[in-house]
Formats: sequence, structure tokens, C-alpha cells
Amino acid sequence: MSDERPLWRRIPAAWELARLGSAGEAPSEWVPAQVPGAVQLDWARAKGLPDYRFGSNVRAYDGLEDYHWLYRTRIPDLGLRPGEEAVFACGGVDYACEVRIGGKAVLRHEGMFSPFETEVGARAGEALEVLVLPAPKEPGEPPGRSQARRSCKPAVSYGWDWHPRLIPLGIWAESGFVVRPRGRLRSAEFSYELAEDLSSALVTVASDPPGAAWRLLDGAGRAVLEGSSEPRVMGSPRLWWCHDQGEPHLYTLEATLGGDVLRRRVGIRRTRLVVHEGGWAVGGFPASRAKPPITVEINGRRIFARGSNWVSADVFPGRVDAGVVRPLVTLARDANFNLLRSWGGAIVNPEAFFDACDEMGMLVWQEFPLACNDYPDDPAYLAVLDRESRSIISRVRRHPCLAIWGGGNELFNAWSGMTDQSLALRLLNRNCLDLDPRTPFLPTAPLDGMGHGDYRFRDDRGREVFEIFGTASNTAYSEFGCPGPAPEEALRTFIPEAELWPPRPGTSWETHHAFGAWEADPSSHLYLPMIERYFGKSQGLGELVARGQWLQATGLLAVFEEARRQKPRCSMALNWCFNEAWPTAAGNALVGWPAKPGPAYASAKAACRPVLASARIPRFQWRPGEAFEAQLWVLNDSCDDLPPGQVRACLVAAGERVPLGSWDFPGGKAGRNVAGPALSARVPQAAPGELRLEVEAGPANAWGSAYRLSLAAP
Amino acid sequence: MSDERPLWRRIPAAWELARLGSAGEAPSEWVPAQVPGAVQLDWARAKGLPDYRFGSNVRAYDGLEDYHWLYRTRIPDLGLRPGEEAVFACGGVDYACEVRIGGKAVLRHEGMFSPFETEVGARAGEALEVLVLPAPKEPGEPPGRSQARRSCKPAVSYGWDWHPRLIPLGIWAESGFVVRPRGRLRSAEFSYELAEDLSSALVTVASDPPGAAWRLLDGAGRAVLEGSSEPRVMGSPRLWWCHDQGEPHLYTLEATLGGDVLRRRVGIRRTRLVVHEGGWAVGGFPASRAKPPITVEINGRRIFARGSNWVSADVFPGRVDAGVVRPLVTLARDANFNLLRSWGGAIVNPEAFFDACDEMGMLVWQEFPLACNDYPDDPAYLAVLDRESRSIISRVRRHPCLAIWGGGNELFNAWSGMTDQSLALRLLNRNCLDLDPRTPFLPTAPLDGMGHGDYRFRDDRGREVFEIFGTASNTAYSEFGCPGPAPEEALRTFIPEAELWPPRPGTSWETHHAFGAWEADPSSHLYLPMIERYFGKSQGLGELVARGQWLQATGLLAVFEEARRQKPRCSMALNWCFNEAWPTAAGNALVGWPAKPGPAYASAKAACRPVLASARIPRFQWRPGEAFEAQLWVLNDSCDDLPPGQVRACLVAAGERVPLGSWDFPGGKAGRNVAGPALSARVPQAAPGELRLEVEAGPANAWGSAYRLSLAAP
Repeated sequence: MSDERPLWRRIPAAWELARLGSAGEAPSEWVPAQVPGAVQLDWARAKGLPDYRFGSNVRAYDGLEDYHWLYRTRIPDLGLRPGEEAVFACGGVDYACEVRIGGKAVLRHEGMFSPFETEVGARAGEALEVLVLPAPKEPGEPPGRSQARRSCKPAVSYGWDWHPRLIPLGIWAESGFVVRPRGRLRSAEFSYELAEDLSSALVTVASDPPGAAWRLLDGAGRAVLEGSSEPRVMGSPRLWWCHDQGEPHLYTLEATLGGDVLRRRVGIRRTRLVVHEGGWAVGGFPASRAKPPITVEINGRRIFARGSNWVSADVFPGRVDAGVVRPLVTLARDANFNLLRSWGGAIVNPEAFFDACDEMGMLVWQEFPLACNDYPDDPAYLAVLDRESRSIISRVRRHPCLAIWGGGNELFNAWSGMTDQSLALRLLNRNCLDLDPRTPFLPTAPLDGMGHGDYRFRDDRGREVFEIFGTASNTAYSEFGCPGPAPEEALRTFIPEAELWPPRPGTSWETHHAFGAWEADPSSHLYLPMIERYFGKSQGLGELVARGQWLQATGLLAVFEEARRQKPRCSMALNWCFNEAWPTAAGNALVGWPAKPGPAYASAKAACRPVLASARIPRFQWRPGEAFEAQLWVLNDSCDDLPPGQVRACLVAAGERVPLGSWDFPGGKAGRNVAGPALSARVPQAAPGELRLEVEAGPANAWGSAYRLSLAAP
Repeated sequence: MSDERPLWRRIPAAWELARLGSAGEAPSEWVPAQVPGAVQLDWARAKGLPDYRFGSNVRAYDGLEDYHWLYRTRIPDLGLRPGEEAVFACGGVDYACEVRIGGKAVLRHEGMFSPFETEVGARAGEALEVLVLPAPKEPGEPPGRSQARRSCKPAVSYGWDWHPRLIPLGIWAESGFVVRPRGRLRSAEFSYELAEDLSSALVTVASDPPGAAWRLLDGAGRAVLEGSSEPRVMGSPRLWWCHDQGEPHLYTLEATLGGDVLRRRVGIRRTRLVVHEGGWAVGGFPASRAKPPITVEINGRRIFARGSNWVSADVFPGRVDAGVVRPLVTLARDANFNLLRSWGGAIVNPEAFFDACDEMGMLVWQEFPLACNDYPDDPAYLAVLDRESRSIISRVRRHPCLAIWGGGNELFNAWSGMTDQSLALRLLNRNCLDLDPRTPFLPTAPLDGMGHGDYRFRDDRGREVFEIFGTASNTAYSEFGCPGPAPEEALRTFIPEAELWPPRPGTSWETHHAFGAWEADPSSHLYLPMIERYFGKSQGLGELVARGQWLQATGLLAVFEEARRQKPRCSMALNWCFNEAWPTAAGNALVGWPAKPGPAYASAKAACRPVLASARIPRFQWRPGEAFEAQLWVLNDSCDDLPPGQVRACLVAAGERVPLGSWDFPGGKAGRNVAGPALSARVPQAAPGELRLEVEAGPANAWGSAYRLSLAAP
């Protein structure tokens, strides 16, 4: 879908880069630079730095973010004709810069999400320089995320439990010279007001400059609505749905002015957050309030949001393009997910991400770049946040996949210290209201009623996920996780051979987050003591990986299904996390870098099938002869009523099958779960190993499920 | 503090009023009108309607709000000189109107809180008419508050459990003709940014038109700061404090331009809402958020907010003037209150209220006019709310007493149905941020952690206030109440003699809220069955009133003190309610209409002393010989450390004194409570009657307390 601007000319620029000890230092050496990109990548190429992804090489990149970096190009002969203007159009600089022409500063800019332009018409032949300032680091703060607490730079690159400390800098988005007629079609903004009953939409297209003629085309290229400056009523708009509820239908908007034609895919839908069924009852006096609404309603239908937390798809934002995000979004859709929370510690993704989500019917909860810090009520910070957030909102609001705006991650928790009164969050709420009033806004997650964590299969008190979530009572689980080790073949690509076995702290295992990653637990994220507790010593890497992944896969399955059983009080389950920014040795991601689904991915996919027979299981490990009990359920998030059938459960160990019995499932209503009976049996007398609970379900065994539990020695 | 505008001339207008069956109907009869006032009051005077406050006369006013009402005056000879303009300046019309000059509509306006003007310079001799439209009533809604759900008209007058259904209309604020030079000084807006450590303030005065010279004068009239367009730094500003924490210091701002001088009292302070001590801990996983902050911090000091809910001081807002509000605010200050919640069901008070609060050091939590309704995401409603709220904020933000903006009352509860996503509340949050960013904003009350209710001495389950609040765990009790009957002498002024005894439903008692007032309890607010349960049948009005007021006074004392004992988790106790709009026969107000403190007032005053010795009591009624136990406390909200002393407790019945023992109080820190021992004794063997727990405290017996309990028959 490319815009046609026959009268525009884009002129490529060749860039060089110099590293400076200070802003005023004269460049002593120039190296080739790729734009978009990052100074660290250019420097590494020029200086032969080792791949930061391997072993502990990442430490060789330490401190590069503290230099000034000077990009240089020459303004080419622009061949400017009367009535034309020429600009240097910059898609984004990470993070703050000064633009100089002919050695003189013409523009200063802070914030990576606001594109900017500067006129260069009369300056052909002169040097254009972009001086990138050192990464912001709050004075007095130790190395870590709190150094980012007075900036809009995503905090994750300052070091996180799954992300190395590597703080990118540079021109990270498409940038170059553009010659165009003055006053030609710059943009066309599509907006609409849907009737309460969704039967019509009042469509407005605001062009800059005003007055563009526009058409809305259906999939066959037929115009279904035409207009210009005045709003037009569209009868029976075909609505955009998330993929599990309907078709993610897109129209094409074509706006024409002068010789220019802008084309964009647009969708029409209504997204709300509503209080769940039964959620208005708040008990006796003194009475508090109902919990904040977190049930997603799309086009008037309440859904259960199944999904995951999307994080940085690469350490370097300049590399996050369609080639990186499309395979990931495809995996998310194929996992039966319908919503991704685009987490506030990371960047707001480029258009390719939202385009893919629009197409594939994936709802997006987009957070602003605030995470786990106390972002201050400071006028200078707020001014940057104001500009950055307005840029972000104006860009992303166009996408029908956008379901929720979020202020940022875990800001109302002790480790952040912000509150409802923090001006940064009130400002974001205001900007969303001003620029995109029909999209819900959450100041942060979790809010009251929502839960984050646990991120372990088994907690300090010995509670397994079955118990932790079986006794929890939340309206949404917007983060939860079970960690597991990376596949052996992946580990071999980034852990040096000599360090592979046994995994030890202080080695590349630790660099890649297998030890001491998460402040709450020193054994994170490999959790060797826990694995050993269930299975004893592992004899080699393969065995260890298999055991860790077993716990991860079983745990994730349990939490997703338990959250779904808690519908309608609960209406959201998003595991932590979906993807990763570089190869981790152990962690919570379902999909390893760059787009390799692990065994936990298959679990999440199974647990998120719209319809499935599910078993509520008390714990992971059993002994022969023990009384085993599981409650059967049929979970239904689909739009279809379910016919009656039979659900049967059976324990399997070492080939021995012990039936638990069956449940004559009476059928069920669209979108409603049905609780069945608790069935029990004795655990088979078999050798230690896997204890498998198989649940078969008629009429179609597509609903069947299997749970991989553990049989210990008697 | 009057502004000097020597070049302005105010020309009085004489008004007449006609009642119309429809907008287009020709007036058939004119009656004299008072401006400011209300059409009902004019009509009653002209037609001899009985006083609505007496008996059930209020029903004679039913339906007057459904007429169109036409105000008429004649534009006088304005004596306009060159360079002058003349306007009709209207302070406020309740609720919507059309202004006509010479029979032609020149202006339409909705909303009572936005003043407006219209030019009349060339129209001398012509008729100026204000056609007041019928009161807004949402189609399809039954008589009651929900009829106000699409308007900014305060919902209370549609009928409330303590307010008659009587819906005022008319020109309710100062209005008339003004002749003035064009372009002269219209306003001077004072604002400041306090340094984090409060050591200096950056003061800005923005005048309209710009360029006024200004001075800040201290109490002796000495200029302490001068300036014009540029901000000026003020070292060591003398801060405004609420009266119990310091001096409510006010400066005088004097702005001069041309011949005009504007004078206004201004104060400098910083108010925040912060999370209470210990409030950041939220337990294990899944982790939610910390509760919303509700502890008031003024000038860096956290305080306990003791106070009440301020409601309509009269049925007719046009009568709420300095003469009405100053005695009430004085009573609030004398009750040791430091904060009033100006409740969203009622009007936003005129300046006289805020002036009095500024002077007397009374903090104000000001809600916008939304209460107990689902105010819609409707563009027409939102447009009016936008204008009304901007008018309100621009006016009230000047007052140092303003501590909190609130979106409205109980909007996140089942009976309202709004949520954090409601556009009306997001709009109010935005407008407050835009126009008064340094004042905290609460979307509604209660929020999570806060409690509203109970409003009874004893609930349906038999729990008394001692138990209800002793087992509650809230961050703020922003509404709670104990009802009681009005004093006998008051009852005799508005209940017809024939109806006085015994009180019965269907009589003026019910009209004045003694029966079936509150939907949750048909015996509200007289609670005859409850009074009888404790004391048996009452033999006459005097005995009934004394018994009811006894329960009320004892209950309120208990709740205020219990809330204070829960400091720091709890940091606010505001009873429901402070005042009333007309004489109620029974209810929760501390002060009867118009400004008569009842016995419960004395209780609240005692319980809100900055320092007191307090006893935690298990229940109200006792039998001789029972084991009585009470825990002693010293409550300290003052800024002073307390010296050691002794606290003694003693039970008194029919002259017999039984000591419970004493506690050698070790002294205490400023602002900190000290918990003492639980002391016990046998209840005296005495005849039924009052059982008094007296707590004496040294060194100064000013801390002493007394609790009036009941001794039943053995």
C-alpha cells in the first residue's frame, strides 16, 4: 500500500559517523554509517567488535552510549524548481540531537518518537550533521532502569531481567532529503463516529491542506463511500474484528489532491473496556467502588482477551521492521491469541507492527514508554512527554487493531512510586482524550483487581502455579509467567562450548539471564534448585533443558486455563512475555529471538484454543497410589453455541491407562464456560516419569487436552 | 475587598417575570421578580404560595419547573461615551436560557456556572428578555435524580433523602448592565510555582488585557513583591495553612492598568495527595497496585483530614450568599474540622464560600456537579460540561483553600454505573490538568480503599458503628453518618401541631425525611424501630428526640475517633453531612438549617480536637455486672510532641463511679497516635439509664473525653 506522490522526489543520503568525547570535540575519524540504524552497530562494524549476542561480548559495548556521536552527510544538488521546497525529513533520532547545517545548529530535538523536518532548499553542497547526544542518565542513579526516569527513552535497554544493558543511540528511523511542491497533500486523517447500535458511521477525512477528495474502497476496489471536507454517513459499515471473533475487515482510504494520492488501509470498529458481569456488587458498608473495567468489548461483544506481552523484538529499534515483526505477529495469531500488550518498557513499534496486527486481527494494548520508574512532575520532562505522546497517538490511532492506550508498566507499585496524581499520567490521559477519545486509556497496569505475577512455576512458599492462580481472584492477569531454559540447539549458538555444562553463575549463562536475573529470586531464570527439587540432578544439558521446559509448558497451560475458568470475573490472560530482544539462556518468553517458538508456545496455543476441554489439577508431582482428582470444564470463548457431548479423562503412566470417568457435557452457550464434575482415580503404580492426564472430548476431539505431570518414586 | 473600577458604571435593572406554557406563548401576566433569585420564589410571593418549608407545602411547588419563564427588563439609557461599551452581564442562569433584545434572540446558553455577557450599547429603550427553559428532565426517567443525568444541573433538587424534590429555575447570580471603556482591565490571574523545598515561589500575574502592573501586599499593606508581565521570584513566601496546622496567611494582590485597580486576596501553598505510610506494600503475587493516594499533604506535611460533607445550604442557590455560608464555615472551623468535601450533588458555591474558607483556613475538596448518575459520553452533554467545568476551575483555582478537585459523587458504584473510561470524567481530569495542574484530581469518591457508609447507628445485621468501623480497614471514610431527629423546638416550627405526635409515615414527618427517606432502609431517617429496640416506647416527643440524638451523638463520636485511631492507614474522616438545605425532621446533618448546631455537632467537635484521650468501646448498651472493656488511646493530629501524663478511665452510672484504672502515658510525637492498654471493670449495678465512660487525661484535662452509653435493665 504505497502512497503515490508523483511530484515528490526522495533523494538518498550517504552517511558517515564520528565518535566524539564531547560535543565540541573535532571529529578525528569517520566510519561508514547505516541509516536507519544505531551508532553501536556502525561502530562495531568499523572496529570489528564481536557480536554482542554471543557469550559475554555485550560488555564490549559498555559505555558507547556515553559519547557524543556525529552523523554527517552532504546536502546534494536538489534541483529545486519554482514552487518546490526541500527538507531533511528525519523519522526519529534515538534519543536527543542537534541538527547542524554548514556547521550551524538549526534545530535541537529530544525524543525518538517524534519525526521532524528542517528546510534545506538553499543549502545544496553544505554539510548536514546530526549530533546525537549521550544517552540520558539521571544523575546519582546507579546503572539500571532508574537512569531513564526523566526521559522518554525506553527503560529496557538500561538493563532488565531479560534484556542486556546496551543502550542504543542513533538515527533509528527512515531519514533523508525530500523535494516536493509547497502546499501539496501531506496527510489525510480518517476518523469516524459509530452509531451506538453500530448500524452506521459518520466518516470524516481531514486532509492537510484541507479539501482533498476521498473514497473508501472495499476489497474489490469498489468505492463504497466518497466525500471531501464534509462528514459522510456510511450505512452498515463492515466492521473490523479480532480474528477469533470475525473478520479483520479493512477498507482502503484513497485521498486525492492536486497530483498526489494517499492510500491507507483503515478499519471501523468500536472498542470499550467494561465492568465484567457481576462486577458492580461491592459488598456492604463502608462501600468502596467497583473495580476498574478491564473486559474488552469489541463491536458490542464482550470477549476474553487471550494473549501475551510484546516486548522489544530486537535490542536495536532500528532493526525492528516488517521482516522482524510479521513472523512474530503471525505466531501470535496462530497461538490463538487475540490481544498483545505492547509493554511500556520497550519502544512503540514502527508501522509494520500495527499494519500486521490490523491485517491479522490482533488487538493491541499500546503502552507509552514509561516503566517501573517514578517519572517526575518536572516541566522539562513533561514537555518532551507531551510532544512524544502526541506523535505516538497521532500515528497509532489510525489502526483498528489499537484497543487500549496504557500509560506504562507497573507505575502504581512500590518499585515505581507513581500515583493517579502523577502529572505524566494525567498528561497522557489528556492527550489520548484530545486526540483519540474513543479508545480506552489505562494509566498503568496492574490496576486494582488486576494481577501481575507470579513469574515462577513454584514460589518461595512452595505454592505451585496451580495453587497460586487457583486461589487468586483477579479481573485480569496482565502478566504471569513460567520460565524455562532455551532449547539446547539455541544455547549452543551463544554460550561458548566451554561454559555450556554445567550452567554456572558468572558465565555467559548469567549474561544471558540464567542466574540472578530477577531481583526477587537469585536462582532466576534457570531455577536450577527448583528443577532439581522435582527431578534430582540432571545428567546433561539435554536432560536439564527438557525438565525445565516441561515445568514451563505445564505451568503456562495451567495458568491460561485457570484464568479462563475464572470468566466472567476474569476476562484477560496475557503471559509474560511473548518474544525477546536477544537470545536468553532461560526466561519467560514463548518465542525465542528472533522468532523461534519454544515448547511453551505450544502450551499457550493449546490453552488458548477458542473451545477446549480443560482439567483443573491440584499439583504437578504425584506418587503411585495417591488419590488424584481433577475437575473437568469446557471452556468456550467462541461465538458458537456448543452441542452436547461427552468428556472423558484418563491418567497415563508408562503405558498404563487409568480412567477417571466421563462427563456427559450438556452443551453450552456461545462465550460461556461450563463447569463439569470433579473426577478421581488412584495414580497408577508405575516407574517414575511422566504422568499424563488426557482429556478427550466429543463430539469433536479437537477439544481434547493433555497435561504432562510428573510421577515420582513411591 | 472590592475592586476599584472608577471608569465602570453599573446600572441596576428592574425585572418582571411571566410564566409561559410554552416557549412561544405570549405572556398574559407579569409579576415582580428579584434578581438574583428563583422563579419559584417570585411566583410564590406573587401568588401567595405557602412557605415550602412548612408541613407538606412543598408539594404546592410541584411542576413549576416544567414551565417556560420569561424575565423582562428594559435597557436603560446607558449614556454611552466614545470608547465605551455596554453589556448585559449575567452571573448565571439556572439552567438554560435564551436572551432576547427587542424580541430577537441574541444568545442561547446552557449551564448555571458559566457567566455570560451580551453587548447592548446601541439598544437603549429596548426590552431585554431572558427566557428560562424548563428544567432538564431526561425522557423516560422516573421523577428523581436520574432525570438530571444528561445535564450539569445539580441532581439534588430532583429529590434526595434529605432534600425535597423542588427544582429551582431562574437568574440565580448577580446580573445587570455595565458600561465600561473598551479594553480596560478585566482580570488578573495569579499563579505560582513553589520550589520543591517551599523556599521560594515563581509568581506570575497574567492580566487581561496583558501588561498590568501588580504588587503583592502583606497584612500591613507593605508591598513584598512587584512585577508586570514577567514572572518574579519570591523568596521565603509566607505559606497558607489550614487553621489547625498553621496560619491561613493571605496576601493581597493589587493589579493596576489604566485607571482600574483589581484587588484580590491570594495565598501560597502546596497541596498534594500522597500514599499513606505503609501503603506501598501490596502483598504477594498476583500483585495488584497500591491504593490511590488520599492522604492530604499540605506544605510538605501529611495531615489527617477531619471534616464533613458540605451540601446545599439552601434549596435555592440564589440565596446562598455570605450571610448564609459564613456562619456555617465558622461552625465547621470551630468543630476542629480542617476539610470540607463540597459534594457533587449540590451546587459549586459562590465566592463567599471560598473566601470564608480561605480566611478561616478550611481546606475544600470541590466536586463537579455530577452525582449518582451515569452521565453519558454524549457530545452535547460533554460540550456543556466542558464549558461549565472550565468556568468553575478558572474561578475556584484562585483560592488557597482549594485542596482537591473531585469529578463527582459515587460515580463508580452500581447505582451510577460510570467508570474510569467515562468521557465526562476524563474531560474533567483534562480540564483540571490544563487549568490547575497543581491541584490533585479524584475522578470520584469512593475510590479503591476509601469507604462510604454506613449511615446508620446499627445495620440490618445488628452491627453497631463500633463494630462496623472497628473492623473496617479503609484509607479514608469520606462519608459516614449517624442519623438523629431534629431538636423538638425546631420540629415545632415546620411540623404542624396535629402531626407532631406520634411521628407517622404519610405526614409532614415523611415530607421532611423521617420515614422512607433512604432507599436502603424504610425506617430512615428517624429509625423508630431501632430507638425502640434500645429504649422501649418513648412517652413523648421530647423523650424520643433525646434518645435519637443520644444514639447519633455517641455513634458519631465513635466513628470519628475510630477513623483517627486507624491513622496512618486512614487519613480522612468526613461525616455525612455537615449542613442541610431545609429543615429535616431527622437526618445525618450536624447543623440544622439554616445554621443550628445539634447535639451531634458537639460530638464531632469533641472527637476532632487535635489532641484527645480516646476510648475504644465494643458496644452501646450494657447490663449491670457485665464485664466492660475499653482500650485507651491518645490521638494526636497536632504539630506538637506531647509530654508524658496519666490517662484514667471510670464508668459512671446513677452517681456510682467504677474506676477502670489508669495508663501512664509515655508522651508522643507530633502527629502520632499512641495506643494504650485495654482496661476493664464490671458494669455498675444501677438503675437503667445512662452509663457514662469518663476518660480523664493529664497533664491537661483538655484531652479528657466522655462517652454516653446505655445501661439496660439486668
